Amino acid sequence: MIVADFATIPMGKGTSASHYVLAVHELLRQSGIKFAAGPMSTAIEASTFEELFGVIEKANEKLAEMGVQRIITSVHIDYRLDKDISIESKLGINKEK
Amino acid sequence: MIVADFATIPMGKGTSASHYVLAVHELLRQSGIKFAAGPMSTAIEASTFEELFGVIEKANEKLAEMGVQRIITSVHIDYRLDKDISIESKLGINKEK
Amino acid sequence: MIVADFATIPMGKGTSASHYVLAVHELLRQSGIKFAAGPMSTAIEASTFEELFGVIEKANEKLAEMGVQRIITSVHIDYRLDKDISIESKLGINKEK
Amino acid sequence: MIVADFATIPMGKGTSASHYVLAVHELLRQSGIKFAAGPMSTAIEASTFEELFGVIEKANEKLAEMGVQRIITSVHIDYRLDKDISIESKLGINKEK
Repeated sequence: MIVADFATIPMGKGTSASHYVLAVHELLRQSGIKFAAGPMSTAIEASTFEELFGVIEKANEKLAEMGVQRIITSVHIDYRLDKDISIESKLGINKEK
Repeated sequence: MIVADFATIPMGKGTSASHYVLAVHELLRQSGIKFAAGPMSTAIEASTFEELFGVIEKANEKLAEMGVQRIITSVHIDYRLDKDISIESKLGINKEK
Repeated sequence: MIVADFATIPMGKGTSASHYVLAVHELLRQSGIKFAAGPMSTAIEASTFEELFGVIEKANEKLAEMGVQRIITSVHIDYRLDKDISIESKLGINKEK
Repeated sequence: MIVADFATIPMGKGTSASHYVLAVHELLRQSGIKFAAGPMSTAIEASTFEELFGVIEKANEKLAEMGVQRIITSVHIDYRLDKDISIESKLGINKEK
């Protein structure tokens, strides 16, 4: 299992991004992928790289459809082979047991 | 107000980082800074860059004290001058209004 | 055209990563994708998200084959629709005209 | 020695960032810090976290002075205690010896 987080930053469309963040969350909801919105980025849980990257590509396409002409995306991926991980398991560690 | 998130990745100390994550959270708690732990990183709310960067430096020093010989830190900063922002306000946007 | 950079950080395999960086560069060379190695990450030029993400997945698989049990990957993507971009065009801006 | 790279993304100021990138490079040149411009970010070599963070704060202040109302900064830091590192030593690894 892969846990990742990502943020898509629209350039050239004013300082507010909330409109775009909501559209990306709607897209994630429709895709059925497990996600958790955070203050700076959105965490995703994926079974494969294809699933993870498919969602990030769709988020970029969504913003492009909405008229954004330049999109900067940051992604951080935790790919762990020695142990099952999930958004919950990683939050458990992070929030303290 | 500045909202940021960061993650400190210990290299050379096994695949588990939970011990180090807990130590960084303890340090944040003691510093009195407002933070929110996420699955991939920890969000921070700071009044100044000095406050934000002071905490990230201390997190690196903490891991070094614990014996980590190489630390990779990722930081993303949202510095907004047109509007007050906070972890809550950004979560509000992200969780949908 | 998409320009991106990425770094794959092996956890649990000592503090040195040069062995792994060289293997990823070899893989990039064989894939025929245009890339530029930097001190902190490797820049890639791709025609599609599939091409970019395919390479990042292969880099993760390569490290896994080499025995790495946990891999943290950072990616930053510049997806621009209003203008053709390339590693060179972006370096030109960055190095000053 | 610390090696890092960073990028400052101006929001709300059109899709072109070259004007701002040049201003940040000018600021780095004046500060005397060692840096290397890349296609996606600028690498810095610093003796201390203060030096590194001082430069990133100044880059944010510079963009604010130029009228940018929201700035997203990404930073990745390599803090290594077991070995001297530099932009050159890390490029040497990355470009292959």
